[in-house]
Amino acid sequence: MNKIHKVKTFIIEKTIKLDCGKTISNFPLAYETYGTLNKKKDNAILAFHALSGDQFVTDINPITNKSGWWSYLVGPNKAVDTNKFFVICANVIGGCMGSYGPSTVDSKTKKNIGTDFPVITINDMVNVQYNLLDFFKIDQLYSVMGGSMGGMQVLQFVANFPNKTKTALPIACTASHSAQNIALNELGRQAIMADANWKKGDYLNNENSPDKGLSVARMAAHITYLSKKGLQEKFGRKLQKREDLNFSFDADFQIESYLRHQGSAFVDRFDANSYLYITRAMDYFDLVKEYNGNLSDAFKSSKVKFFIISFTSDWLYPTSENKEIVIALNAAGADVGFIEIESDKGHDSFLLEVPEFLKSVKNFLEANY
Amino acid sequence: MNKIHKVKTFIIEKTIKLDCGKTISNFPLAYETYGTLNKKKDNAILAFHALSGDQFVTDINPITNKSGWWSYLVGPNKAVDTNKFFVICANVIGGCMGSYGPSTVDSKTKKNIGTDFPVITINDMVNVQYNLLDFFKIDQLYSVMGGSMGGMQVLQFVANFPNKTKTALPIACTASHSAQNIALNELGRQAIMADANWKKGDYLNNENSPDKGLSVARMAAHITYLSKKGLQEKFGRKLQKREDLNFSFDADFQIESYLRHQGSAFVDRFDANSYLYITRAMDYFDLVKEYNGNLSDAFKSSKVKFFIISFTSDWLYPTSENKEIVIALNAAGADVGFIEIESDKGHDSFLLEVPEFLKSVKNFLEANY
Repeated sequence: MNKIHKVKTFIIEKTIKLDCGKTISNFPLAYETYGTLNKKKDNAILAFHALSGDQFVTDINPITNKSGWWSYLVGPNKAVDTNKFFVICANVIGGCMGSYGPSTVDSKTKKNIGTDFPVITINDMVNVQYNLLDFFKIDQLYSVMGGSMGGMQVLQFVANFPNKTKTALPIACTASHSAQNIALNELGRQAIMADANWKKGDYLNNENSPDKGLSVARMAAHITYLSKKGLQEKFGRKLQKREDLNFSFDADFQIESYLRHQGSAFVDRFDANSYLYITRAMDYFDLVKEYNGNLSDAFKSSKVKFFIISFTSDWLYPTSENKEIVIALNAAGADVGFIEIESDKGHDSFLLEVPEFLKSVKNFLEANY
Repeated sequence: MNKIHKVKTFIIEKTIKLDCGKTISNFPLAYETYGTLNKKKDNAILAFHALSGDQFVTDINPITNKSGWWSYLVGPNKAVDTNKFFVICANVIGGCMGSYGPSTVDSKTKKNIGTDFPVITINDMVNVQYNLLDFFKIDQLYSVMGGSMGGMQVLQFVANFPNKTKTALPIACTASHSAQNIALNELGRQAIMADANWKKGDYLNNENSPDKGLSVARMAAHITYLSKKGLQEKFGRKLQKREDLNFSFDADFQIESYLRHQGSAFVDRFDANSYLYITRAMDYFDLVKEYNGNLSDAFKSSKVKFFIISFTSDWLYPTSENKEIVIALNAAGADVGFIEIESDKGHDSFLLEVPEFLKSVKNFLEANY
């Protein structure tokens, strides 16, 4: 993993009680901002990142030297226009891009915290990020938005702080992590923990990291981010720089080479323990249970205007699960719009150039500002 | 892995040229039979097993002490009635249940062959199993049948030997392995090869095997065998023997515990190198390409009566891919029936108690005998 440098952080000096019962205090939260907060402080948007994301929403990520994860959506004159809006994004706690997490060095022991880091939840992530409002002296956000795990944070934020945002865009997400998604996350965790270099999480103080395990976890996840049809159209059975089958276990097919690349590129920027903690938080997410089986109770006092977006080929967080949120919001009498976008790009659609998606977000944000 | 003992084998004394260009000769093929071959020798059915299957179709598998993989379908008075039919099944070459494969001990070196075993194809598997007809002195089989990779072998068998079976049942399969399925198999292979105990396949002569990697591969595959809806209904977010979340990386959810069990049970009966070879054979399967893009040419001289079965919730080999086979058979003027069975049990439906499936197979086999 690259060293974290030139990352903006602020120290949260409060004591925050986590869902697991433990408390954390005086810990760093890494963040980035885009655009300018106006005088009325009514143009701020808090974006929440997904499992493998970070605070570098757009422009060039200074750590990876690649475009930020929401570069298609966020920027000057883009759907989330940073000439108009002030976009804030923080690295979630448990993450590895400067926020408090398993790769943080303990000031007392001078060692990485590793699996001594407490197991966190989406609720914990959101409660920590709420401190950004104080930090920027913002009374009410214009919007909270995010896809996948970012969308879960949107839902949790509105449930926890119903008066602290005017609008909310949960995208390609769920109110209750499904059995299949728990299974897929567990697969990733087992791949990491199966790596002999993982050493119960105490590898950052060693020479070797569980790169192979993390790479396998990423490959597994990456398959789930794309649709069967999208994979078939993009890769099909195309061979990788060869005329015919090689009769070996090399990457004969382009899809194999692509996946191997996805795996190896990921280990350069992500910490295996963070992968464990963040997937665990996703699995624990069940806003339905938190409100005793009645999701609409999560939103009953909310005046927030919602816009929910799903994608036709997203089999990880399918339209049906997004619609359950719409139904709960309707039952709560909330103001809610919903669109299912036609796309073959699978769950990853929210990160990609999907014109109807980009336009829908733009229209919603501009119409309600 | 358990020792292979009390397994019936016969030695194929011919020399067989493999698709990779290498030849094999004087090698064992392990097989099992159920029922009795009649005097006319017209009641034989050759069943082909899937990736993780073996020759023990029904009754108790003497190696695992569990029921055979097609126990719901095959047996006295069952859909494939062994009071009437003589069912033969062989362990595929590359397998680990007695047939020639990477775990076979080389008679010269006295060591396991490991990855010196040649990369094989579905075509190679079928050409080897064709020798069972000579062995049993059967001129024409009554039927060839199989699901998943077994179905691919059915298609290849009919293409190679159009006069050697009267009927054919390819179930939940494809004529050309999709990009998504190659990706999923590659994931399994990478999980195995990431295990430090794999040692480029030379582990059977060592103390430790790549059990953790094989277990992760199996977990990944197992998720794909079930449907999202089926997983949700069976497991949902039920907790494993606890009242509440444990805030750890233990198996909090039943689905996690179930997957871990699937993984660890598999390593007791399966060889990691065999997993590599057999998934590779599946990925290489492309009957469409073999017939220069025209699948119907594979069946143009065939008088075989086909019955193709798919399952609504099978996302690994969806109805659309099974229908492509039907379309090609229709274009070839072949006699073909097709049914899509309603089931929430995913790809695994062909192995499970799905009454409409069992009844469909029974009706087809009895109507045409």
